[in-house]
Amino acid sequence: MKKINVGLVGLGRLGKEYAKNLAFKIRAANLVAVCSIVPEELEFAKNELGVQNLHNKYEEMLEQEELDAIFIVSSTNMHADHIIKALEAGLHVFSEKPLAITKSECEKVETVAVKYPNQYAVVGFVRRFDPSYQYAKQKVEEGAIGKPYLVRSQTIDKDTIADWQIQYVKNSGGIFHDFNVHDIDLARWFLGGEIASVWSIGGAYKYPAFGEAGDADNVMSTCYFDNGTMAVINASRTAMVGHDTYTEVVGTLGTLRIGRPANKNRVEIYDQYGARQECVETFWDRFEEAFLLMATDFIDCLVNNRKPELTLADARQATIAAEAFTTSFEQKELVKISTA
Amino acid sequence: MKKINVGLVGLGRLGKEYAKNLAFKIRAANLVAVCSIVPEELEFAKNELGVQNLHNKYEEMLEQEELDAIFIVSSTNMHADHIIKALEAGLHVFSEKPLAITKSECEKVETVAVKYPNQYAVVGFVRRFDPSYQYAKQKVEEGAIGKPYLVRSQTIDKDTIADWQIQYVKNSGGIFHDFNVHDIDLARWFLGGEIASVWSIGGAYKYPAFGEAGDADNVMSTCYFDNGTMAVINASRTAMVGHDTYTEVVGTLGTLRIGRPANKNRVEIYDQYGARQECVETFWDRFEEAFLLMATDFIDCLVNNRKPELTLADARQATIAAEAFTTSFEQKELVKISTA
Amino acid sequence: MKKINVGLVGLGRLGKEYAKNLAFKIRAANLVAVCSIVPEELEFAKNELGVQNLHNKYEEMLEQEELDAIFIVSSTNMHADHIIKALEAGLHVFSEKPLAITKSECEKVETVAVKYPNQYAVVGFVRRFDPSYQYAKQKVEEGAIGKPYLVRSQTIDKDTIADWQIQYVKNSGGIFHDFNVHDIDLARWFLGGEIASVWSIGGAYKYPAFGEAGDADNVMSTCYFDNGTMAVINASRTAMVGHDTYTEVVGTLGTLRIGRPANKNRVEIYDQYGARQECVETFWDRFEEAFLLMATDFIDCLVNNRKPELTLADARQATIAAEAFTTSFEQKELVKISTA
Amino acid sequence: MKKINVGLVGLGRLGKEYAKNLAFKIRAANLVAVCSIVPEELEFAKNELGVQNLHNKYEEMLEQEELDAIFIVSSTNMHADHIIKALEAGLHVFSEKPLAITKSECEKVETVAVKYPNQYAVVGFVRRFDPSYQYAKQKVEEGAIGKPYLVRSQTIDKDTIADWQIQYVKNSGGIFHDFNVHDIDLARWFLGGEIASVWSIGGAYKYPAFGEAGDADNVMSTCYFDNGTMAVINASRTAMVGHDTYTEVVGTLGTLRIGRPANKNRVEIYDQYGARQECVETFWDRFEEAFLLMATDFIDCLVNNRKPELTLADARQATIAAEAFTTSFEQKELVKISTA
Repeated sequence: MKKINVGLVGLGRLGKEYAKNLAFKIRAANLVAVCSIVPEELEFAKNELGVQNLHNKYEEMLEQEELDAIFIVSSTNMHADHIIKALEAGLHVFSEKPLAITKSECEKVETVAVKYPNQYAVVGFVRRFDPSYQYAKQKVEEGAIGKPYLVRSQTIDKDTIADWQIQYVKNSGGIFHDFNVHDIDLARWFLGGEIASVWSIGGAYKYPAFGEAGDADNVMSTCYFDNGTMAVINASRTAMVGHDTYTEVVGTLGTLRIGRPANKNRVEIYDQYGARQECVETFWDRFEEAFLLMATDFIDCLVNNRKPELTLADARQATIAAEAFTTSFEQKELVKISTA
Repeated sequence: MKKINVGLVGLGRLGKEYAKNLAFKIRAANLVAVCSIVPEELEFAKNELGVQNLHNKYEEMLEQEELDAIFIVSSTNMHADHIIKALEAGLHVFSEKPLAITKSECEKVETVAVKYPNQYAVVGFVRRFDPSYQYAKQKVEEGAIGKPYLVRSQTIDKDTIADWQIQYVKNSGGIFHDFNVHDIDLARWFLGGEIASVWSIGGAYKYPAFGEAGDADNVMSTCYFDNGTMAVINASRTAMVGHDTYTEVVGTLGTLRIGRPANKNRVEIYDQYGARQECVETFWDRFEEAFLLMATDFIDCLVNNRKPELTLADARQATIAAEAFTTSFEQKELVKISTA
Repeated sequence: MKKINVGLVGLGRLGKEYAKNLAFKIRAANLVAVCSIVPEELEFAKNELGVQNLHNKYEEMLEQEELDAIFIVSSTNMHADHIIKALEAGLHVFSEKPLAITKSECEKVETVAVKYPNQYAVVGFVRRFDPSYQYAKQKVEEGAIGKPYLVRSQTIDKDTIADWQIQYVKNSGGIFHDFNVHDIDLARWFLGGEIASVWSIGGAYKYPAFGEAGDADNVMSTCYFDNGTMAVINASRTAMVGHDTYTEVVGTLGTLRIGRPANKNRVEIYDQYGARQECVETFWDRFEEAFLLMATDFIDCLVNNRKPELTLADARQATIAAEAFTTSFEQKELVKISTA
Repeated sequence: MKKINVGLVGLGRLGKEYAKNLAFKIRAANLVAVCSIVPEELEFAKNELGVQNLHNKYEEMLEQEELDAIFIVSSTNMHADHIIKALEAGLHVFSEKPLAITKSECEKVETVAVKYPNQYAVVGFVRRFDPSYQYAKQKVEEGAIGKPYLVRSQTIDKDTIADWQIQYVKNSGGIFHDFNVHDIDLARWFLGGEIASVWSIGGAYKYPAFGEAGDADNVMSTCYFDNGTMAVINASRTAMVGHDTYTEVVGTLGTLRIGRPANKNRVEIYDQYGARQECVETFWDRFEEAFLLMATDFIDCLVNNRKPELTLADARQATIAAEAFTTSFEQKELVKISTA
């Protein structure tokens, strides 16, 4: 059986989960090397995952290891640089979203990628791999809801992590790049067009600190697509119920609603509070399975020389849209995007 | 327009609601007289409902008033006597459930009723008039679920009224007569047969006082019908969520579930307790509309000389079953009912 | 008991329902006269409702009858004129929504109304009287969801009546005035501010005839309020599931969701299509109770000299917003509304 | 890292799934040998799972291989014999349910097992390992619903496999042993007692062939426990909606409902059929994750010398109850079980 030798950079919370999936749950992957500037994270990889080759310099890992592919789970501002260096080192690349927070940076990566047509480069939009989203997509393609013309999608984090998020606002590119890039990708996926105009509004309704940092705790963006369809996308850092991610696809013959309520499991409670379902706490609780399926799919593409469905162009378009959302929010005006 | 002159006996909580419906909401009814032994209740009828003819003796009301029909909302142990006297006085009769708590008393009433074939005598099983139960019945008759072979039905009161209920255990005939007589009627209605064997179990799981009174706070009864179908019926005095009355009809082609959750209205709340619906508090909150529809239907039968669907035989069969439930519970054995 | 003498103009589908409520279900109302230019409608009022005084000229009814109040259920383009004439005739006025489809017409009515400070003039936004919306409003006022900052609201008609609607597009003022005026009113009610900017998009996704008439079959409008809050409002003529009216109010401590799914009753069906609930077919199925409560409340205001909560200013603000939605949709630009 | 060498007997539908879990998804397990009398199944194990040691005689596998543990997924009537031989060969044993279909056979196994106190022998009741059931159990132990006194539990297969099931009625021991043994185990688990009396009823309501085979397509059993609690357990082979397995635990302070509806995923559909959720098709769709967690837990017990929670006594008690259900169904009488 063909095995793919993988290196991974970035061993923060999410990076550790990627590493565990690659080490234990994806049979065709060998996690042979990891890179982090945090000594404790390298210790974790050595002790918990049995990874032998530990690096604190990314370039060193690329030079010294015999890798087929790299997984990039570093901080957002490093993604573009890490992708370019991996491509130049002859590797296939999987990067966590977003590709970058400016259109120009995205294009810089694409310019390099085009020189390496035999290497796959993918930015992971994890929801596309969630079984419920997959099922909805299949239903849409079967014509179950006719022609889709409206997507509503939201990314909502539980209130309890707002305090922790405030320190990452700068590096993450803000709420549109950090939260809504997923919803943008889903809207493009279901509606089959590009965003032509957007108006974004919102505010710091609960935590003024986000406003002071030029960001928001709740935003809503309305999008008109170049094929005449519509999307309304919102994000929140203040949900009490949990990580209430939700998408609705409306077509001429029906509607699909994905993920509401974001129930934690199959248990309902009937008590003095009513008939109720507890909800997932975090995006990880909600999408753990999808993260595994996404990484598995990428490795499978490499094993079978199958082209990944996601492209750098998908990542670029999501960034262009998130950039436009941000501009619209800051300038309080409609922003038109050239889709030529 | 033909109007029906109505007298009403019993102005307790439920009696007042019947009286209000008859006085204000049923166009073809004239509430001309009421009877109660509680002076405050007669005052209520005079001041709030504008009823002129007030009685504290039932026989006196029957003698002195020009009535077409009587509504009996007196205590359970008076129903049979009040029905018989009204029939003998030449009136149509509507009585709150149950007809009586013994088979022999039921038969006594039927023996009288048979002498007055032109007078309607009905015991009200209110759930049959609830729009959701009506819709379910219609679906069953249309064949939507094939042949029904199983009914699950429960009557459940909110825990908060258990303290109040304990004093009425004796007069009500116990939890089987007071709660499950409705479920028995529904099971007969949906399954089209008579209960042939029953096993009832239960206990005083939360409030020992019910056990000390020879009753229970939770019971479950399983019934095998003479046509080979099945029902499982339970009752509870200890629900935290509200009046969670619920019925399920299972057929060879599908299942109908009526009333779960017993949501208070169309509002869902998403908060720290999860995604939740508050539930109705009492049977009145749940069945207010059905009580009005039931009384309206009876008046309409009188106006149009239309025979009521419910019969004294329905009431008798429900009582026979509830009596068997009680015997089974007390003797801890299977009880067979002669359905010949 | 004080009774209010009421005249009614307009006996179309909805007018007939108002008339039935006034004739039979609102105890303090006397429906003494009606006006319609359709002879069959006057026959209906005479034969079915027992109304004696029938008119085919509105002015004649105002002159000849001894009325306290008028109910206006005529076509949208007549509302303003009918209100003004009724005020000048010394009557209290209840009018179906909308007041008018231009700001200037609304102001004309208000200019007249101000001369008659002792007469109530109300435009009915029926959802405010629906028990679920009432409960949600009460919850918000109790602080159950903290400070509300986002409303999502939709008005959606079942696809099956689209063919019928196409002929009324012109008179109704289009989808924003006809459908979303309710959602606008609810957003103002829950958020406590005025719409400052709006962007409306949409199209004729299923029925080109609406596009040819300058209207749409699906639209979405995003609103930024002068108090910094947000609303997203949409309308559809193409829902397959039924009249799926729905509103969500999001606050800093929780979310209230009103009306989804728009289940027809309390029956769930488990069959080869899954676990499912059928939904209401029309706005009348959904809001029948609210229409009665609304008319009852208006009559009660007259009986008790209680000022109605709704004002002509509410109606004017809804019209101003719907006008701005329409302009935004036509010009494909953000529209700012002066809220000074 | 310690690894457990595992042999597996039985490579039918479910056996294959166990084998895949052991081969690929449980890190501490080495699937070193398999046994089947069907040549194609051995081919599958060799080609798809890479298992080298293939046997068509169980005893031969036990003799020739160096195993730590055996997984038994053979037909029900072989379980007891396979367990005993594995124990005598010095192995730990995991067997699919049920242990046997008579009390005496169960006791025979236990008599042997007692001689090998250092070997674990477990019969798998998979629902105990489902995350939702786990969560419910944890909630009960935390006191979230007070003292549990009632369990409702059902095992329901989709109608579409009834034709296939009819041929296995004899080997499976009938619907009580095949379906309800799970529900019996859950009722014992949640209620903490043993079944003292049972009444089972039912019939062949849709497929007479089950009746002709002495079995049923729908059954219901009511149980009174030795600690005074209650359970009602039913099974169906005729559900249209899917594999609608469901359990409800009722306590003095609340109720937990597990698994209804048995939704296939997080997608809801709004279309001409209403607001609906499609449901899982088979027990495997519903419990795939639990099967993996169950096998993983057993391997983990061996690695860490941790005693499994499930015991042969649990399996024996479930069989005793299912035997009593069967007797009650056949004799149409209440059956009392000595729990001394």
